[in-house]
Amino acid sequence: MPIKKVNLADKLSQFDELWSPRIVGEVNNFAVKIAKLEGEFVWHHHEEEDELFMVLAGQLDIRLKDGDVILDPGEMVIIPHGVEHMPVAETETHILMFERKGTLNTGNVDDEHTRRDLEII
Amino acid sequence: MPIKKVNLADKLSQFDELWSPRIVGEVNNFAVKIAKLEGEFVWHHHEEEDELFMVLAGQLDIRLKDGDVILDPGEMVIIPHGVEHMPVAETETHILMFERKGTLNTGNVDDEHTRRDLEII
Repeated sequence: MPIKKVNLADKLSQFDELWSPRIVGEVNNFAVKIAKLEGEFVWHHHEEEDELFMVLAGQLDIRLKDGDVILDPGEMVIIPHGVEHMPVAETETHILMFERKGTLNTGNVDDEHTRRDLEII
Repeated sequence: MPIKKVNLADKLSQFDELWSPRIVGEVNNFAVKIAKLEGEFVWHHHEEEDELFMVLAGQLDIRLKDGDVILDPGEMVIIPHGVEHMPVAETETHILMFERKGTLNTGNVDDEHTRRDLEII
């Protein structure tokens, strides 16, 4: 398979659905995902998987039980496994995520926000 | 340990050394690294580890045996394990890398470019 670069803006232009990550690459057993967010997600944690969030556009507020982490473009945070968190975006926000393949977006919660079998774009 | 965000520009301002990656985060058994590059690196491959390169500033030319991949800011590429590659930057270029912890920057080659025991900043 030829090695092709990924232009993140180009990939983001290919979908509009909110809170529905797309996979844009795989690094060994990890996946690189992008997503568009607006509004409040759901409180959840991941039993085993750490999660990296990087903001590409907009602003992401990751609510934690003991405070918030506010991310602007060019900023990232790693939420360790086991830590309850709830992503919130006041306006449309574009993010990149890096996490183990198969990490469920809602972690220990299964509700209307849950997305399985993510599309590779 | 409190969860702290990482501002990539701030981290990049903390060192000037070229071709000497710093670790800015860990996601399970993977590391997030940043580096400043200028000039030519060395042809190498990694036996097991895939490598993600993302350009934050400047331009990165990843030479491959069957062509180049040229990355501008906002672009990334994943070099699968086993694939020979040589990063080249005509002017000073800042990158972010995701790869398995312990991945050696020069892969199968051990020469003056090799960096071990990377600093965490």
